[in-house]
Amino acid sequence: MEPKRPNAMDERRLFLIGDVPGFSPQIGRLVSMMNYARHTTLSAVEGLEPRHLDYLHDTHSNSIGALLSHVAAVEVAYQAGTFHSRDLNRDEMREWGAALDLGERARREIRGHYLTYYTERLGHVRAMTLAELGRRGDDWLNEQSPFWGGLAANNYFKWFHVFEDELSHRGQIRWLRKRALAAA
Amino acid sequence: MEPKRPNAMDERRLFLIGDVPGFSPQIGRLVSMMNYARHTTLSAVEGLEPRHLDYLHDTHSNSIGALLSHVAAVEVAYQAGTFHSRDLNRDEMREWGAALDLGERARREIRGHYLTYYTERLGHVRAMTLAELGRRGDDWLNEQSPFWGGLAANNYFKWFHVFEDELSHRGQIRWLRKRALAAA
Repeated sequence: MEPKRPNAMDERRLFLIGDVPGFSPQIGRLVSMMNYARHTTLSAVEGLEPRHLDYLHDTHSNSIGALLSHVAAVEVAYQAGTFHSRDLNRDEMREWGAALDLGERARREIRGHYLTYYTERLGHVRAMTLAELGRRGDDWLNEQSPFWGGLAANNYFKWFHVFEDELSHRGQIRWLRKRALAAA
Repeated sequence: MEPKRPNAMDERRLFLIGDVPGFSPQIGRLVSMMNYARHTTLSAVEGLEPRHLDYLHDTHSNSIGALLSHVAAVEVAYQAGTFHSRDLNRDEMREWGAALDLGERARREIRGHYLTYYTERLGHVRAMTLAELGRRGDDWLNEQSPFWGGLAANNYFKWFHVFEDELSHRGQIRWLRKRALAAA
């Protein structure tokens, strides 16, 4: 019999920030927030077709598809940084570089996909994050290292940043969704 | 001598989620995240003139000024809900209703102000939030009540929602800022 996976995404607990089975107390709180953020990102793109996911509002805009890829790419980058203390390697940059950078290259390379392409990648990356977080404890979350501008950041901040960046782009996705649906 | 206010916004601790002097342990973590979110919102609007704050990208768009007012209004609404277990009263709705609802009424009513009008309101509202949070403890943060769709939400979630909504609109503000500066 398969070991029961920690029930990290229990919809009846969507509005509770607190303990999550399978995680240390503070990591559970972090995971609660990551879950809610992801829930709203997925809601924001529900039912979108490739033409909506590829929609470019103007020449400087990112598509919704590119923003979804960016959310996954940022998570991959912070997996490498916080779980393995390294930058993305050449293979990972080949896979995620355009999504990380957004802009011109993302407009050129990230297009023509169905929604499931993006959501499956998000789900796959998230499963790896939860598996790694489940092996760690609150002490790890509090570990500090020099970060932006040489100021100290702890792992709690770094994973907060992963979901706060997602929420920021979710705001843009909600805005773009209305225009993409009206346009096509 | 004035009592020393809890140093809730220490820029050297901007990338640390953890204890904050003057707050209980979990409330300190929440305040750390609220601080960072606010720091990035204020950065996103730095230097904007009334014409940028009033910029309407299209007939359905909210202005940056309206979004800043919305961020403050949501915080006021959750102060009433979580600190005083009530909805906004008639006077508060007169002051904050347009900002809460956004859309047509906000486009009509919220305009013509300098940046300081918005940032001072944000600062005033935030000071009240921090004063109230400083009087409460982690038990209060965990208190649950029926919320959206009748599902239980705790106070931690409600204040998480206040800053996650801010982050979502900050994403829109960053997008609008580029267009507003290019247009005017």
